[in-house]
Amino acid sequence: MNQAQPAYQFDHRHLLGLADYSREDILYVLEQARYFREILERPIPKIPSLRDKTIVNLFYENSTRTRVSFELAQRRMSADVVNFSASASSTKKGESLKDTIRNLESMKIDMVVVRHESPGVPHFLTRCVDAGIINAGDGAHEHPTQALLDMFTIREHFLDYDGLDGLKIAIIGDIAHSRVVRSNILGMLKLGAQVVVCGPKTMIPRGIEHQGVQVSHNIDETLAWCDVAMALRIQMERQDEGTALFPGVREYHQQFGIKRVHLDRYPDFKIMHPGPINRGVELESEVADSNRSVILDQVTNGVAVRMAILYLIAGGTRS
Amino acid sequence: MNQAQPAYQFDHRHLLGLADYSREDILYVLEQARYFREILERPIPKIPSLRDKTIVNLFYENSTRTRVSFELAQRRMSADVVNFSASASSTKKGESLKDTIRNLESMKIDMVVVRHESPGVPHFLTRCVDAGIINAGDGAHEHPTQALLDMFTIREHFLDYDGLDGLKIAIIGDIAHSRVVRSNILGMLKLGAQVVVCGPKTMIPRGIEHQGVQVSHNIDETLAWCDVAMALRIQMERQDEGTALFPGVREYHQQFGIKRVHLDRYPDFKIMHPGPINRGVELESEVADSNRSVILDQVTNGVAVRMAILYLIAGGTRS
Amino acid sequence: MNQAQPAYQFDHRHLLGLADYSREDILYVLEQARYFREILERPIPKIPSLRDKTIVNLFYENSTRTRVSFELAQRRMSADVVNFSASASSTKKGESLKDTIRNLESMKIDMVVVRHESPGVPHFLTRCVDAGIINAGDGAHEHPTQALLDMFTIREHFLDYDGLDGLKIAIIGDIAHSRVVRSNILGMLKLGAQVVVCGPKTMIPRGIEHQGVQVSHNIDETLAWCDVAMALRIQMERQDEGTALFPGVREYHQQFGIKRVHLDRYPDFKIMHPGPINRGVELESEVADSNRSVILDQVTNGVAVRMAILYLIAGGTRS
Repeated sequence: MNQAQPAYQFDHRHLLGLADYSREDILYVLEQARYFREILERPIPKIPSLRDKTIVNLFYENSTRTRVSFELAQRRMSADVVNFSASASSTKKGESLKDTIRNLESMKIDMVVVRHESPGVPHFLTRCVDAGIINAGDGAHEHPTQALLDMFTIREHFLDYDGLDGLKIAIIGDIAHSRVVRSNILGMLKLGAQVVVCGPKTMIPRGIEHQGVQVSHNIDETLAWCDVAMALRIQMERQDEGTALFPGVREYHQQFGIKRVHLDRYPDFKIMHPGPINRGVELESEVADSNRSVILDQVTNGVAVRMAILYLIAGGTRS
Repeated sequence: MNQAQPAYQFDHRHLLGLADYSREDILYVLEQARYFREILERPIPKIPSLRDKTIVNLFYENSTRTRVSFELAQRRMSADVVNFSASASSTKKGESLKDTIRNLESMKIDMVVVRHESPGVPHFLTRCVDAGIINAGDGAHEHPTQALLDMFTIREHFLDYDGLDGLKIAIIGDIAHSRVVRSNILGMLKLGAQVVVCGPKTMIPRGIEHQGVQVSHNIDETLAWCDVAMALRIQMERQDEGTALFPGVREYHQQFGIKRVHLDRYPDFKIMHPGPINRGVELESEVADSNRSVILDQVTNGVAVRMAILYLIAGGTRS
Repeated sequence: MNQAQPAYQFDHRHLLGLADYSREDILYVLEQARYFREILERPIPKIPSLRDKTIVNLFYENSTRTRVSFELAQRRMSADVVNFSASASSTKKGESLKDTIRNLESMKIDMVVVRHESPGVPHFLTRCVDAGIINAGDGAHEHPTQALLDMFTIREHFLDYDGLDGLKIAIIGDIAHSRVVRSNILGMLKLGAQVVVCGPKTMIPRGIEHQGVQVSHNIDETLAWCDVAMALRIQMERQDEGTALFPGVREYHQQFGIKRVHLDRYPDFKIMHPGPINRGVELESEVADSNRSVILDQVTNGVAVRMAILYLIAGGTRS
């Protein structure tokens, strides 16, 4: 694998964010993931790559799909898995994060997959322990495996691209508060894509153009332009809490939702969504289920991409 | 196995309820379960039948014994198990059940064991995904593995029966709100049993005789008649909530509890209970622990019956 | 192993507390644990000793480190593990503990690791079932695996001792409400140590001298004397609840906290803590992280000691 670049050496011991990964690193991960994606198609999608490795899934925030996706990736690779969620943790007893992680490491674990509401927690953990750290989402900072699976999915559908060079990608929704966006912008630009972010003004940080993306507030203009439209989840909780960033759900759907009519009007773009979807808000239900949607591919690819990362990080820690 | 009926072919891809299973289907499952019951008696009760199959236990309602029973069955068959409970799920984020299950399937799982408070959820899931679906209880609708283990246990103690032909079975308690009863009535009648339901009028649905059972409001009459008395759990929560179906716990025990005195008076009937028992309500404590009780056999048999179902449904999906 | 005492036979089927274990028993467990401690240092710290054994972790109280430590020990020994925590249990449905455990046993499990707020629960369980019972903490009664790992850690650092004969051990903090202390005093005295308990009067039970320990209320005097100082966790919850046993956290730290200045003043003693540490209360943060602290060794040794106990109890049940 990767014989075209004999000089390349993946030498990361952690995955904290795509800010730290070069174009070559990202392409290498995606290349590895293709192999794992094929394994998932086998009648028996199981390999011994992580046999006798112990991984702790340390989730301080609730997460269905990310936790299950990581756990499936780990089990398919025959790892030993220990789940540790915040509600059952001794954080209630006031134990510091540092002590928790050091304790886990003293129990001789190999890797930690961590999700936490505070940005920087995964990075902090690397300074405390020797285990490989994989960021499964830290506050509004990064969610690198989500971005990797998104890019993997895009490449899968646009095979004539090496990276994503020249591909036109629109990201639509609450750009300001999304770790998915941050990781995706970092990764997509490194792979050569053109990125437009689209949403109401309240949801787009000022000066984001300096990161190398363009801004639009017009969904039609955006969909007419793009090859791929990635809709982001609207945090409905904000609406309830009175910290809403837009007048109402109906108005958001009106202005920024992707609807059946758009599919007819702009016949080329593919639709993505990191999930969970608010049907009737970000996407009309029919749009989510249309043949233009690659949302379920994203989910399958998520397991493959996470297998690739676990494999590479494990190699980095112990080989 | 099953050589007496060479033409029979088990061809279910799911277990949604016993309404869908014929007499032959039920007898075939029970026959298979005998083999797994023997395995449980081995010093090392473990077989590779589900090695490399991935099963998600999707529990939207709390359940100790059913979840642990399924999980043990799965582990004894060497399956990969991912637990997913409602409290940790993204249902809080408003994700639809359909999206949840499709996401799980996109992760390439083989079977889903589902418990949900709404009747029909397992059936709905079969329309969304290819994975085999096993109903572990859906609202007041069905709880088919419970009924299968009940019938298995009854057969074990009345070996001269082929099905349950002619056997006299009484089910005592809140008939109207029990999924256990619904599945049991369906199954037992198919196997040829005579069924009496017994309880206060408020707990017995009008017109239940049309389903082929008889009704009694007299515990002594019922126990004098039956070969097997299955007491149902009283929902004590209802009493607290003011939606009680009877005046009081003490009065219920007085009128419908099975007591020591009944064991002496009617020396033949066996006692069953799906658990958890309210000691002193449905059963006097001494009755639950007497040699007439086969309640713990039910628990052991539950693992064996679930192994049989997992085995058969897995074969249906992938062989 | 243990050839010096050919007549010795470990014949416990349970580990309820160190009250039941003789000096020989404890030394034998610690000896076995040395072997498992070495295994943890291997590149692949995994052995098949408990393959095809099923263990239920039955935790009625929250616990991060004890549960994870047991679970890692079990997985490293290739056991099948089913976790069962109180919040997901049918105890909410009013099922008695006895029925729960009997049900678990009817599912053919080999061992139960139990933590419960009520003293005596593990002992009670041994009267209900055949499975091996391991106490992971019962109220203020005992926490024997914690004491075993503490003693293992102490021996590791004082190799010239056979047992702990003559070693000077100070336990500092809330002596009156600690199951860790109870188990440690029982074990340490059997191994021949001298034990001083140190804390405010409100935290030391009257008449504790009759158990064979000495009492001090002076931290300097205590640290000057001891080879090992084990600080106990202060229950900060008590402070909030108004059931405080001392005027304030700051005052406790002032009078009984181990501080940097103590390390200089008394250059010999080692520092232990069962965790989680309240940094700045029981220990100055710098003290917890100093080279005098063996706290992280305690954590690693916890896995080894639990492997030893699981191994011995499994042998007791099934060989």
